[in-house]
Amino acid sequence: MEDLRKEFGKHYLVEFCDCDKEKLKYVNFVQESLLKAAVKSQATILQQFFHQFDPFGVSGVVFIAESHFSIHTWPEDRYAGLDILTCGEMYPELAIEELKRLLEAKTVKTKVIARGI
Amino acid sequence: MEDLRKEFGKHYLVEFCDCDKEKLKYVNFVQESLLKAAVKSQATILQQFFHQFDPFGVSGVVFIAESHFSIHTWPEDRYAGLDILTCGEMYPELAIEELKRLLEAKTVKTKVIARGI
Repeated sequence: MEDLRKEFGKHYLVEFCDCDKEKLKYVNFVQESLLKAAVKSQATILQQFFHQFDPFGVSGVVFIAESHFSIHTWPEDRYAGLDILTCGEMYPELAIEELKRLLEAKTVKTKVIARGI
Repeated sequence: MEDLRKEFGKHYLVEFCDCDKEKLKYVNFVQESLLKAAVKSQATILQQFFHQFDPFGVSGVVFIAESHFSIHTWPEDRYAGLDILTCGEMYPELAIEELKRLLEAKTVKTKVIARGI
């Protein structure tokens, strides 16, 4: 019997807690950090888009050949939520480690969910 | 004792299976569909970005005040993967229902993951 299940990728849902709140406020630093993290993971970067909330807080996405990175920051809570959807050869763990360092997160929690049919 | 846990939102990971493959090939239809779905959910749309893969396949994101929608399509497999991160008042289920209809998905599977500290 044919197995109709197919995994299209893994979805990493990552919580960065007790970050340096100043690092989370504005697009410039968050964008630079997410790009550095994407490069570390050996993803193939296609396009990137960021949104500045008023007075602070950032949403951002980086499209990669392997799917995407997205980030949302809540400076007032010293929290950033990241997700990495990957359906190719890359190293999400290296991106997570790099962002932990750059955002100065004290705690990081990661869930990995299989995506697909 | 203070409860330090905080939920920032819910992350809906949604698999659309056995779609009409023609609907998944190009940005135009996927973008229009995702926007219709976002409107149905009563999200506040901020910005939207889409990427066309060659020869077909689409990645897209819609930033909303409540966080984001993202979609990736694999026409050859008649599959689309959606995620909705929401940290506000909106109705993700209505968006999922609308996209099921528009992409003509035979099967839809949804996981809901709590995001936060």
